Amino acid sequence: MVEADSTPLTVPSGGVTGTTEQVAVPATLPLRNGSSETASPEERLALIKENLAEVLDGEIIEKILKEGRHPKIYWGTATTGRPHCGYFVPAIKIAQYLAAGCDVTILLADIHGFLDNLKAPIELVEQRAEYYRFVISAMLEGIGVPLDKLKFVLGSSYQKSAEYVMDLYKMASVVSEHDAKKAGAEVVKQTENAPLSGLLYPLLQVLDEQYLDVDAQFGGVDQRKLFTAAKEWLPKLGYKQRAHLLNPMVPGLHGGKMSSSDADSKIDLLDPPDVVLKKIKKAVAAPKVVEENGVLAFVEFVLLPAAALRGNREFRVDRERDGLEPLVYTSISQMHEDYRNDVLTPQLLKPAVAKGINELLAPIQAAFQASKEWQETTLKAYPPPPKKEKKVKNKGTGYPGLKKKEEEQAAAQNAVDGGAAATS
Amino acid sequence: MVEADSTPLTVPSGGVTGTTEQVAVPATLPLRNGSSETASPEERLALIKENLAEVLDGEIIEKILKEGRHPKIYWGTATTGRPHCGYFVPAIKIAQYLAAGCDVTILLADIHGFLDNLKAPIELVEQRAEYYRFVISAMLEGIGVPLDKLKFVLGSSYQKSAEYVMDLYKMASVVSEHDAKKAGAEVVKQTENAPLSGLLYPLLQVLDEQYLDVDAQFGGVDQRKLFTAAKEWLPKLGYKQRAHLLNPMVPGLHGGKMSSSDADSKIDLLDPPDVVLKKIKKAVAAPKVVEENGVLAFVEFVLLPAAALRGNREFRVDRERDGLEPLVYTSISQMHEDYRNDVLTPQLLKPAVAKGINELLAPIQAAFQASKEWQETTLKAYPPPPKKEKKVKNKGTGYPGLKKKEEEQAAAQNAVDGGAAATS
Repeated sequence: MVEADSTPLTVPSGGVTGTTEQVAVPATLPLRNGSSETASPEERLALIKENLAEVLDGEIIEKILKEGRHPKIYWGTATTGRPHCGYFVPAIKIAQYLAAGCDVTILLADIHGFLDNLKAPIELVEQRAEYYRFVISAMLEGIGVPLDKLKFVLGSSYQKSAEYVMDLYKMASVVSEHDAKKAGAEVVKQTENAPLSGLLYPLLQVLDEQYLDVDAQFGGVDQRKLFTAAKEWLPKLGYKQRAHLLNPMVPGLHGGKMSSSDADSKIDLLDPPDVVLKKIKKAVAAPKVVEENGVLAFVEFVLLPAAALRGNREFRVDRERDGLEPLVYTSISQMHEDYRNDVLTPQLLKPAVAKGINELLAPIQAAFQASKEWQETTLKAYPPPPKKEKKVKNKGTGYPGLKKKEEEQAAAQNAVDGGAAATS
Repeated sequence: MVEADSTPLTVPSGGVTGTTEQVAVPATLPLRNGSSETASPEERLALIKENLAEVLDGEIIEKILKEGRHPKIYWGTATTGRPHCGYFVPAIKIAQYLAAGCDVTILLADIHGFLDNLKAPIELVEQRAEYYRFVISAMLEGIGVPLDKLKFVLGSSYQKSAEYVMDLYKMASVVSEHDAKKAGAEVVKQTENAPLSGLLYPLLQVLDEQYLDVDAQFGGVDQRKLFTAAKEWLPKLGYKQRAHLLNPMVPGLHGGKMSSSDADSKIDLLDPPDVVLKKIKKAVAAPKVVEENGVLAFVEFVLLPAAALRGNREFRVDRERDGLEPLVYTSISQMHEDYRNDVLTPQLLKPAVAKGINELLAPIQAAFQASKEWQETTLKAYPPPPKKEKKVKNKGTGYPGLKKKEEEQAAAQNAVDGGAAATS
C-alpha cells in the first residue's frame, strides 16, 4: 500500500501537462520490469482491456502495440461538479492504460461545464477544471503509475479555434439531426425542451478525437451509440476512425445509479477516514446478492485492479473480531462465491472496503495538505456559501440555483464518465 | 433613366466595403434635396416600409429616425448560386433603405454557401461571394442610390471567431431543439435526413444581428418565425432585440414560385436585351388575372420603385404598333385595373417590362464590360464545364453533382432572400 507518509507525492503545477515526476513503481507491477517497453503486446493489450465491457475496433490498438508504439487514448470529463470516489472507476482504467504504455489525454471539458450551467461564471468552471487536474493527478499518483505519458487538455484551448469550428460546421452539414439525436440518446436528455446543445455535443465529442490526435476514446457503455457514430462521422470529414474502449456501468454504493439527491452520501476524495467508514456503512449491500452490489463492484473495478497495479492483486477482509484468519481474495469470482454463501457478509465486507478506500485517499489528502495552490484552487472552485447554513461543507456556492444544478450534473456526469458510479 | 453610356459606374474593388464613389442622384429623388439628412423622419420611414409585408418592432427604427440617426439594417445571402433578375426584389428594398439614410450591411454568407455544398471547394464559394459583391453593387449603382452607406461583410470574416463560436455554444444551450426547428420551419427542409446544420443556421442568423451590429434585419416573410425567434433568443445572451423588415413573397415570372428546373428561364443579370425579351415573352401572365402574375409583380416591386428612386415614379407601356398613345402608370393599382379590364394586355405589358428590365441591366452590363477584375472573378466563380455540352453558358462547373445542387440552392435561395422570386 502506498501510505501518505511513506510516499511523498508531487502535485502537478500549472500547464496542461501532468507532472513528469514519477512515483516509484513496485517491482511486482504486472508488466515486466515495471515497464511497458519490455512488456509483450499481448500483456499490454490484456491490461488495456481488463474489466472493459467492450472494445470497438480493437485492431487499431493491437496494431500499434505490435509495432511497439504507444496507443493514444482520450477520456473527457466536464468540469461541472466535484470529483468523488466514483471517479476511481475511470481513473483505474486510465492508470492501467498508462501502465500499459499508452499516452493518455484527459480532456477537461470546461466549455461544456460552463454551458451546462450558464448560471455559474466561466471563472468558477475554470477553477474547477484546475481542481479536477489536481485531484485526478493525485488519484493516479496514489495508485502508483507514472504520469509522464498523461496530459490534461482544456476544451477551451482548442474548441473555439477557427479550424475546429469550421469542422464543426462541416460536420453539422453532413450529420443528420436524426443521427445526432440517436448518437446522444443515452447521454443527453431527450425531452421536448432539450437544448440544441444536446445535439451539438456529440459532434464536438467526435471532433475531439481528431483534435486531441488520439487512436482511441475511452468512456462508459452508455456512450456506445456516440462511439459508433464517431466511426461513421469522422471519415465524412476525411479523418480516420478511432477505436473505442467501453467501461461497464458500475453500480454505485447505494445500488443501481448513484443517489444524487443526497450529496452527503457521496464520498468526497478529501473525506477523512471516519466519514468514509460512516458512509460505507450506509451503503446498500444486500446479503448474498452480488448483482447490483455497489460495494462488491467497488472491489472489482477499483480495489482489486489498484492492488494489481501496485504489484499484489489481493483484497483482505479482516475477521479478527471473530477470532478468525482474514479472508484473502485475488479474484472477484472468489469473493462472489463467498458472498453468495454468506461467508463474506456485508458486515465483514464494508469495513474492508472502507479501509481500501481510505488507503486510496490517503496519498490524495497528503498531496492536498502539501499543496497551498491546490487548497486555494479548491476555495475558488467551490466557494463556501456566503451565509451560514446547516450543511456547509462542499455544498453551497453563492450562486442561486447552482446547488441543485450541481447535483443534477454530478449525477449526469456519473452516467457519462466512463461508468463512474461506484460511490454513494 | 440611368444609361450605361451616360453614367460611368465605379465597380467596388477588394475589401468588404462597397465603393464610396456615388452615382449622381437626380434632384427629383423622393427625399428632399436627394438627401436623407434633410428628409423628415416620416418620409424616411415611409420609404423604408414601402411595399413591405410587415414590420416587427418598427418603433426601434422610428426612434432612430426621430433622433436623426441612421438605422443599421442587414440582409444576408448565401453565395451559392448566381444572382439573377429576382435579386432586384431585395435590391430595390436595399436601395430604398440607402435612399432613406440607412446604413446597410449585406452579409455574403460564404460559410453557409460552402457548407450547403461540400462538393464545391471553398475557393469557388469565395469567388462567388466576390461575384455577388460586384453584381449587387452594380445593381444598386444602376438604380442610382449612393453606396457610401453600404458595406459587404463575408460570413467567414467573423463566424469562425472565438467570441462568435462561444456565443453560438451559449445560444445552443439556451435554445431548445424544438424552438430551433420551429424557427427554421419555413426556410429549412424538414425531413428525417435533414442535416443538423438546418437547426444550427437559425442560431447563426440570429447571432449575426449582434455581430453585424445592426438595428434591424431584412428578409422575406418566410423568415417570420426565425425573426420572432431572434427577438426571444438575443436577450437570453444579454443582447438587445432588433426590428425586422419583412418583404412579401413575390411571384416569379412563371407564376407562383420560380421554376428552378429550367435554368434557362431565369434572366441572368448579364443576359443581352434580345434574350431578356425572349424569356419575358415566355413568362406566365394570364390575361385579366392580376393575382400571382409575376410580370405585373415585377413592375410593382421593382420597376415602379426603381423609377421612383430615380425621381419619376412612372411606368410607360408603348402602344405605337396599334397607333395609340402610350399608357402611363404611376401606381400599381391603375395598372391592375387596366389589366383586369384587358386594356393592358399581356402582349402590351411584356415588351414594356422587358424594356424596363433591360434598362436596369444596361448599367450592370456596362460595369461588367469595364471591369477586368469582375470578368475574371466570373470565370473563376462559374468556371465553364471542362467538356463541350449543349448548354454551356452559366451552367456546368466541372464538379460532379454540382449542377443539380446549384439549381436546388438557387430555388431555395429565392425562397429565403427577401422574397426574391420575380424572374423565371
